[in-house]
Amino acid sequence: MPDLADISIRQHVMAALSEDIGHGDATTEALIASDSSGRAKIIARETLTIAGVAVAKAVFVELDNEASIDAHFEDGEEIQSGECILTVSGQLRSLLTGERTALNYLQRLSGIATQSARYAKAVSGTGVLILDTRKTTPGWRLLEKYAVQCGGARNHRRGLDDMILIKDNHLAALSSECAIAEAIRRARLISPDLKIEVEAETLDQAQQATEAGADIVLLDNMTIEELRAAIKLIDGRAQTEASGGITLETIREIASTGVNYISAGALTHSARAVDISMKIES
Amino acid sequence: MPDLADISIRQHVMAALSEDIGHGDATTEALIASDSSGRAKIIARETLTIAGVAVAKAVFVELDNEASIDAHFEDGEEIQSGECILTVSGQLRSLLTGERTALNYLQRLSGIATQSARYAKAVSGTGVLILDTRKTTPGWRLLEKYAVQCGGARNHRRGLDDMILIKDNHLAALSSECAIAEAIRRARLISPDLKIEVEAETLDQAQQATEAGADIVLLDNMTIEELRAAIKLIDGRAQTEASGGITLETIREIASTGVNYISAGALTHSARAVDISMKIES
Amino acid sequence: MPDLADISIRQHVMAALSEDIGHGDATTEALIASDSSGRAKIIARETLTIAGVAVAKAVFVELDNEASIDAHFEDGEEIQSGECILTVSGQLRSLLTGERTALNYLQRLSGIATQSARYAKAVSGTGVLILDTRKTTPGWRLLEKYAVQCGGARNHRRGLDDMILIKDNHLAALSSECAIAEAIRRARLISPDLKIEVEAETLDQAQQATEAGADIVLLDNMTIEELRAAIKLIDGRAQTEASGGITLETIREIASTGVNYISAGALTHSARAVDISMKIES
Amino acid sequence: MPDLADISIRQHVMAALSEDIGHGDATTEALIASDSSGRAKIIARETLTIAGVAVAKAVFVELDNEASIDAHFEDGEEIQSGECILTVSGQLRSLLTGERTALNYLQRLSGIATQSARYAKAVSGTGVLILDTRKTTPGWRLLEKYAVQCGGARNHRRGLDDMILIKDNHLAALSSECAIAEAIRRARLISPDLKIEVEAETLDQAQQATEAGADIVLLDNMTIEELRAAIKLIDGRAQTEASGGITLETIREIASTGVNYISAGALTHSARAVDISMKIES
Amino acid sequence: MPDLADISIRQHVMAALSEDIGHGDATTEALIASDSSGRAKIIARETLTIAGVAVAKAVFVELDNEASIDAHFEDGEEIQSGECILTVSGQLRSLLTGERTALNYLQRLSGIATQSARYAKAVSGTGVLILDTRKTTPGWRLLEKYAVQCGGARNHRRGLDDMILIKDNHLAALSSECAIAEAIRRARLISPDLKIEVEAETLDQAQQATEAGADIVLLDNMTIEELRAAIKLIDGRAQTEASGGITLETIREIASTGVNYISAGALTHSARAVDISMKIES
Amino acid sequence: MPDLADISIRQHVMAALSEDIGHGDATTEALIASDSSGRAKIIARETLTIAGVAVAKAVFVELDNEASIDAHFEDGEEIQSGECILTVSGQLRSLLTGERTALNYLQRLSGIATQSARYAKAVSGTGVLILDTRKTTPGWRLLEKYAVQCGGARNHRRGLDDMILIKDNHLAALSSECAIAEAIRRARLISPDLKIEVEAETLDQAQQATEAGADIVLLDNMTIEELRAAIKLIDGRAQTEASGGITLETIREIASTGVNYISAGALTHSARAVDISMKIES
Repeated sequence: MPDLADISIRQHVMAALSEDIGHGDATTEALIASDSSGRAKIIARETLTIAGVAVAKAVFVELDNEASIDAHFEDGEEIQSGECILTVSGQLRSLLTGERTALNYLQRLSGIATQSARYAKAVSGTGVLILDTRKTTPGWRLLEKYAVQCGGARNHRRGLDDMILIKDNHLAALSSECAIAEAIRRARLISPDLKIEVEAETLDQAQQATEAGADIVLLDNMTIEELRAAIKLIDGRAQTEASGGITLETIREIASTGVNYISAGALTHSARAVDISMKIES
Repeated sequence: MPDLADISIRQHVMAALSEDIGHGDATTEALIASDSSGRAKIIARETLTIAGVAVAKAVFVELDNEASIDAHFEDGEEIQSGECILTVSGQLRSLLTGERTALNYLQRLSGIATQSARYAKAVSGTGVLILDTRKTTPGWRLLEKYAVQCGGARNHRRGLDDMILIKDNHLAALSSECAIAEAIRRARLISPDLKIEVEAETLDQAQQATEAGADIVLLDNMTIEELRAAIKLIDGRAQTEASGGITLETIREIASTGVNYISAGALTHSARAVDISMKIES
Repeated sequence: MPDLADISIRQHVMAALSEDIGHGDATTEALIASDSSGRAKIIARETLTIAGVAVAKAVFVELDNEASIDAHFEDGEEIQSGECILTVSGQLRSLLTGERTALNYLQRLSGIATQSARYAKAVSGTGVLILDTRKTTPGWRLLEKYAVQCGGARNHRRGLDDMILIKDNHLAALSSECAIAEAIRRARLISPDLKIEVEAETLDQAQQATEAGADIVLLDNMTIEELRAAIKLIDGRAQTEASGGITLETIREIASTGVNYISAGALTHSARAVDISMKIES
Repeated sequence: MPDLADISIRQHVMAALSEDIGHGDATTEALIASDSSGRAKIIARETLTIAGVAVAKAVFVELDNEASIDAHFEDGEEIQSGECILTVSGQLRSLLTGERTALNYLQRLSGIATQSARYAKAVSGTGVLILDTRKTTPGWRLLEKYAVQCGGARNHRRGLDDMILIKDNHLAALSSECAIAEAIRRARLISPDLKIEVEAETLDQAQQATEAGADIVLLDNMTIEELRAAIKLIDGRAQTEASGGITLETIREIASTGVNYISAGALTHSARAVDISMKIES
Repeated sequence: MPDLADISIRQHVMAALSEDIGHGDATTEALIASDSSGRAKIIARETLTIAGVAVAKAVFVELDNEASIDAHFEDGEEIQSGECILTVSGQLRSLLTGERTALNYLQRLSGIATQSARYAKAVSGTGVLILDTRKTTPGWRLLEKYAVQCGGARNHRRGLDDMILIKDNHLAALSSECAIAEAIRRARLISPDLKIEVEAETLDQAQQATEAGADIVLLDNMTIEELRAAIKLIDGRAQTEASGGITLETIREIASTGVNYISAGALTHSARAVDISMKIES
Repeated sequence: MPDLADISIRQHVMAALSEDIGHGDATTEALIASDSSGRAKIIARETLTIAGVAVAKAVFVELDNEASIDAHFEDGEEIQSGECILTVSGQLRSLLTGERTALNYLQRLSGIATQSARYAKAVSGTGVLILDTRKTTPGWRLLEKYAVQCGGARNHRRGLDDMILIKDNHLAALSSECAIAEAIRRARLISPDLKIEVEAETLDQAQQATEAGADIVLLDNMTIEELRAAIKLIDGRAQTEASGGITLETIREIASTGVNYISAGALTHSARAVDISMKIES
């Protein structure tokens, strides 16, 4: 499990609180004395895979650095409806002011973890790894890629800087005859430290990429038959990744083609927020 | 339609690009000459209500301040699959480097606008207004509330500072006998400039809130029958808002109860990203 | 009493110290050994209502996170000349480097609190509330509105976002015949969650605003007679606020007209800094 | 006249607008179409010395980078009541949203310039220079020191880093017998590039400072007689500055003692905001 | 040649100017009228490979956005002593205030490019690539890696995130018997998208790394004989990189061993600033 | 010894870590369990004068705020090859992730301190002080000037704001006949609080500067004979500083001329990083 660096969490949380609080939490300041203290429970309202416990903690600590927080589960665990995830004791004002922000983080990140766990489970036993994509919420790359791991899937490249991925638009921009081989040659020369992946929409492109020495071939939007043919043609000379239109219904059959990785944007860009709520104990 | 202030957009976009680019766009820098120019089209791949055109523009302008961008639709318009939303001409490197970030913004914001338009349409003609909630993605409050408006729904409070909303957890924290009346009294004293809304889970609470002078009563998780009873009881002395478990299937019937507003977290926290792609023209 | 959120204070204080220290406190670094420690007393030099104790503390803590600070008064208390407000023990260098910044905060905020207390006292017993305005020092909105409360006055809207306030310039910009009624209608539609206040410079405008359903009518620059007439005309259908040319001399008479609120920019924009000094104990 | 560096102004203004606008200018967005344009005049409501024209401009440009702004006066000029300072043409929304922030800057900075001009005029012809102090509003050092110059007074040190100023608290912290001479010796050794000023509360201290080679002696809280005696004693071996309890009533007599500089915190910490307003032209 | 993204440059330059200017450029403000304009030439005072032209431009544009700047050379070109690199026309104040910051950037970056060019030239014709390291000045990673490319050398990994590099300290921390093979296995599982390099200090470690499937073996601090033996043993199964104690004297012989890459921290951490000056034309 | 303000260090270190870590430390996260702890020693690999111990500490504390760090030397001490500078105990992940950044700071700052110590030693006993210049790495002004002091040299002005320094380019820009006297007159009027230094390239200029009352005359690029003549001519009426082409070989002879200060850009812009490494103890 990766670290969620404290530095990054804290700045994210501070910006989120500032955005929500604005000029002040008018309701809480009017109703609750500044020296009142209390306790709150954060509770799952459906079955889910949890992610973001440290972020939720950071929300309450930012507002009350003497708050006492007990986490009853760790990121990556499956939680049943009704189970208590966190107990927070501290200033009542901080509990009330932080509630929505803490839940917004937990619901979104756990939604992604839960979705990722479903995808990972669908291919369990096949040896195929599920990967995410760069289709993340701007500003949330680190957090969402972390949630994907909490669900048992893996991360594809984290940004434009840690891998060469030659896509259709790069080839369209290059527009020369032997574009794939030439592109791989240039990339290897400039960035000898990076792996090279090439997107192939046809068997011919898959063959060009393989012969030019790509480390990974991304088989994009192919049918099951095309995938099988491509994998046979590549024959272990490069690793293979299937992508495009992946759903929970089709994923197991895709895995059966012998592909190494399956990547799905839906892990991050369309995960439904899971239901989690907070209760102040009176 | 509200403004999306340029200041806010620009800082959001700069952070998003920095997050994706990291040490540099390794692929593009290796393959494309820095003085190449080209053109790209951003195209809808399903029917959708568009939101975020100015944000997508800002992405490309940030990377190439001489880029020329034509928007063929305005935020709030419905676009059919296959139609071109934006044409961008400029440095090829900037088009390729900005592609994913621009799409991530457009897909998410248009997903929310499309979802909001569905909800607004479901109650059209009833005079009921659909409202969003504070269940937004941390860091995206302004952008997501804007997208909700693009879809024809309205904004509930923008933060903790622009309205008093007394919820169950505030009452639990207060824990006195006549909590509702006392809470309203305190809030009015401290913040004479803010409207006061009170969450009621029972008819009794709705009555207390109304009699204590709440501006709006939030009828939370009530059945159709309870809603009708509450609205009859309130009898125009306060405005009414229904919330909790709102779906596209139930919303029209809820609107028929005579409630003034219906609010739904799903507008923002669980909208699916719509399908939009970019093509470099070779 | 509201909270001064620690986050906001700390960033404000860090910027202030950075502005004053620049490349370094040349005098203190030259004269005082880095391991010397000592004690300082911060003392009132006139009668004042204190505000900003937490900010002054934050200045010294930022420079020496092991400093020990005793506050002998709480924000909102009246202090006599010669009384000691704070005792600070810690590194001598930090005491000397922080002195001016801590005093600049305390003198300005307590100046506002003292001024606000004078205004609040002038109407005591009448039930009228004194309000501040948005005429605050840019960058100090939160701090100055807090100081106003320390003096016993209340806050008018905190920004452009937490209330609708339709002023003469809005009406000039609209320039239609029935501008006030139309403006209220539009505002209510777009922002159902916000209270609506309308500035009236004449009895006719006050009547239009009242009949169109304004929550509050701002009676601007009216004579005592005009105020009485307006309040009679409004007759409890809206709340009323008097503004414009308010002074300590006239305020009690204005309060006697039956107006609900009196607002004065002078609370924040022209409060004199009170006299507070610091003494190192040798 | 110094420059107000564009960088600094712009960041200051962006923070100020963000503070005021928060989630959005609710009134203006509700009432005014986003494509409406108009014109506004900013007008003096009393006689004043203007400062901050560039800052006010920056407010409107930040909100509407195509706004057209004509300044009819330059910083430092005296303006009569009723005269128009600036004419701004552009989006109506930007004019209305920026009004208060622009005025807050202009009123405060011109208040300081007007106060400074009064002090400078009071000693005109004597050759004495009026200096400000570090008693500025935290976050406003640069702006307020600029306004002081607009009024015809001069700046004392800008921060803790551009001059050695040995004050009573430094001497209390040093607590050795020949503290002044020793302090000057240490300071000169560490910072050979900085001038050295010493605060003297007695003639004896003034003598010690002079003999130890101080560049300037700060004569603090002395009577006219003490000032004359000190200046006679120093006899041109160091420059002299009078400080403490300076008022417009006493300043001319103090100047007559032959002191080189008179410094007054009141220039910045207690200047009353001058009256300036904005009118939209319908 | 990579792009130096405008965003990154601008923020770097703004911070640098702020650091140097502090409260203001006292000399220039005192001597030069704010409306004076002039021209300056930036001239090489020794033979050098230039890098940082865009950064120097950004310095002057930041201070005067109407400055006109002609660059007579592009980054990566060799320039002889006495040749003019840039001509800048604009406000005299901006030329004087920006001089030192612009030169500090140009001298440092060109120093690195010149050093890199010497190393690259020393192995020209051998097919061996010179790589930099992460031994860069904190805050300058992007700029210094760019300057290395301007000199004709290549970049090793840009940060801790774009490659797996298993070093002696990682192995010491793992402390198991078959540490290298196990470490490679774990890394490949977690980060399938990254290349894996292993540092080997002995032939045995080189063999373990090769057999466990490392993409690159880093031969650290080996003699020429050890290098030859290691390369023979690896026999093309992995790429090879020599590092440790590389100097201009030894580098050609090291290149002759058949290694693929030679990396040297001295490219960035110990390059001497080259001599460049600016002259105002009177 | 000056303070390195904690605020400044912390922000510098956070930016440096963020730059190096990017999306995450891929190697360490893959290999090391998040709950492993260990110990590391930071060791000198050559004789050096240490600077930056507090910065290195801050790196590890930022990553692991419970790390325990023992510093065996203080900044300014000379350390022999093989001696241990710091021992750090804490999370193994933090030790590995922080290693390079901590060393980059220590190696650069100690390189400058070591170089400065060499220059200071070369003139020991002469009473001449060695000064640095503004030729520092942008973003590192404070840190590098601190390192210079650690080596026993002194700081010349810290920025453009704490001293008047009239250079050849200012005089070229002024272009009047009696430029030096006029420039000094203007500067003294505007900034009475700052010392005035004038750059002289000829004896005639030195004479003009002296007679016009400069506090310091900067004798630029003069031969030993010219220096002696200038110092004789100035005859104690101003202090003197030699600059331009200073090397360790020539510096003692220059000091013998009776000049007060010698300044050298090489202290900061061309110091070689010293060799320091870190070892994890297995």
